[in-house]
Amino acid sequence: MIELRKDPISARWVIINDTRDFQFDIPRRQAQTETVGICPFCVGNEKLIPRPIACYDKDGNRISADSKNWHIKVIPNNKPILTIEGNIIRKAEGLYDKMRGVGAHEIFIESQEHDYVTMYNDRKNFITDTLALQDRINDLKNDIRLEYILAYRNHGPFDGETVIHPHFQLVALPIVPKAVKTEIDTARKYYDYKERCLFCDIIDQEISSKKRIVMENESFISFIPFASRFPFETWVFPKEHTFDYRILNDRDKIGAFAEITIGVIRKLHKALGRTLSYTLMLHSYPLKENKMDYYHWHLEIVPRLTKYSGFDLISGMYVNPTIPEDSAKFLREI
Amino acid sequence: MIELRKDPISARWVIINDTRDFQFDIPRRQAQTETVGICPFCVGNEKLIPRPIACYDKDGNRISADSKNWHIKVIPNNKPILTIEGNIIRKAEGLYDKMRGVGAHEIFIESQEHDYVTMYNDRKNFITDTLALQDRINDLKNDIRLEYILAYRNHGPFDGETVIHPHFQLVALPIVPKAVKTEIDTARKYYDYKERCLFCDIIDQEISSKKRIVMENESFISFIPFASRFPFETWVFPKEHTFDYRILNDRDKIGAFAEITIGVIRKLHKALGRTLSYTLMLHSYPLKENKMDYYHWHLEIVPRLTKYSGFDLISGMYVNPTIPEDSAKFLREI
Repeated sequence: MIELRKDPISARWVIINDTRDFQFDIPRRQAQTETVGICPFCVGNEKLIPRPIACYDKDGNRISADSKNWHIKVIPNNKPILTIEGNIIRKAEGLYDKMRGVGAHEIFIESQEHDYVTMYNDRKNFITDTLALQDRINDLKNDIRLEYILAYRNHGPFDGETVIHPHFQLVALPIVPKAVKTEIDTARKYYDYKERCLFCDIIDQEISSKKRIVMENESFISFIPFASRFPFETWVFPKEHTFDYRILNDRDKIGAFAEITIGVIRKLHKALGRTLSYTLMLHSYPLKENKMDYYHWHLEIVPRLTKYSGFDLISGMYVNPTIPEDSAKFLREI
Repeated sequence: MIELRKDPISARWVIINDTRDFQFDIPRRQAQTETVGICPFCVGNEKLIPRPIACYDKDGNRISADSKNWHIKVIPNNKPILTIEGNIIRKAEGLYDKMRGVGAHEIFIESQEHDYVTMYNDRKNFITDTLALQDRINDLKNDIRLEYILAYRNHGPFDGETVIHPHFQLVALPIVPKAVKTEIDTARKYYDYKERCLFCDIIDQEISSKKRIVMENESFISFIPFASRFPFETWVFPKEHTFDYRILNDRDKIGAFAEITIGVIRKLHKALGRTLSYTLMLHSYPLKENKMDYYHWHLEIVPRLTKYSGFDLISGMYVNPTIPEDSAKFLREI
């Protein structure tokens, strides 16, 4: 069963999906991967994975999906959170709401090399990744069933990444998830009141106060947010107002984006250790929107140093044991 | 520094508090506790903890805070999330909002015995816990600075409980946390439309459909929610409409509550192993409200089997790898 169900109390959609392994947390998944020992993303093991959706060369150009000389290979996740087949059927079950679990779940294999750990230190690869992601978003945007695309990258052992081989993921959803909706609603309220983009105002304030900035260049800024949830959480914003991530079609602009993102990750690794786990999350706009004066795309980098506690779970709040200004100063000076 | 900061994008308050240890997740905290070896909650180690706020005898009656024959002892957390001193001062920092970190963080030591692991299998102790918690809520409700009280219990090693000695916690906040606000807002909208309590309607539907019920008696029902976030997440509701947890001043009613809660926890232990970690969370009403036709207090029991993933973090959604109806059937039949 793959079904989207809405909790009527929290108004939050949950994906009920028993087609994936229910892996208990202990023993750690990392250990499992190491004992299994066969990497499904390595060349030669193609039988273990579905047929590619797309391949890209080292310049980010789309090439034949069967090409041997791929630089990035995009495959459907063989245990997807949501599946691409079928129509979205919204139904009631008494007072509850549900819909069929329609969507897409794609994996971007970022290298033919299994141990290419320096991937995210490599500007050229970052640019290729960005171009490939944009191409996939362009394609999925044509599917009228889809409302939002989440793109994220888990790095390191914390989160139970089952595969070490460098990759990131994309999930296309038939709804706009609650966290994104809240962000957009808040930004819209601010715009209604101020007639300015909330994010642009935040960027201006961060630039003038300086104290939470980690790195900046002409086009991008990274800073530790004023009310950051997690130690060393860092956000990367384009300075210019732009709601659509796909606008990054200029290689120089992507280069500037790469410089800041890679720079922050290098600093985090230096500060917190080479084995640091982190999640990169792209915050972009709902697919059905055509123009958003009040939304501003950005990237969130969250080092995975602390676990959620009972307090976080119940309150939806977070306790951050570090002072954002101190963490920013620390990273700035590395 | 202990400060509440509001993220202007997500409208979520975060507690910035660098007075607590910043414990990295690895190595696991459990290991730390075992090596340190001195339990601050054990009799004889009172010097390690602050002076008690209150003590209760085995019937839940308040006794002298200096009594040696306590059954439950309430102490302030010596590394609190929020501190009780000072006025709430709301301030701006440019477009950001912040306030002083005023609140209370109390620990309820539930037994003089360090290894009293069967605590939650003991109905009499459950009743005493409930009465002690009510007494503390009554007291804190008089503090006009406070808006909400969170009560929760972490059990087991998953969450990095640093102390094994049985205890639960209470955090009193100067704001209503976002998760609770959303719950209340949604319930209010439903009430405006239907003129009925959303929670009462959910309970009725669960009773008539039967398929998600785990246990029930005359006064309480437990079920796996339709859109449960986590495997085996179970909620306990009083059948009768009541917004205020403190209304539980009748020992028979508390007994019925204990029967269901203890029953569910026993079943979870049998199903998932004796070393199961879980969090109990009380969902009650904001302190400043006097009557709420649209809110219904309840308890949420969340087994900690899976970790949050990058996907959860970015979307605020959850992927549940189990089907609620299957899990409920499984627990019912134990």
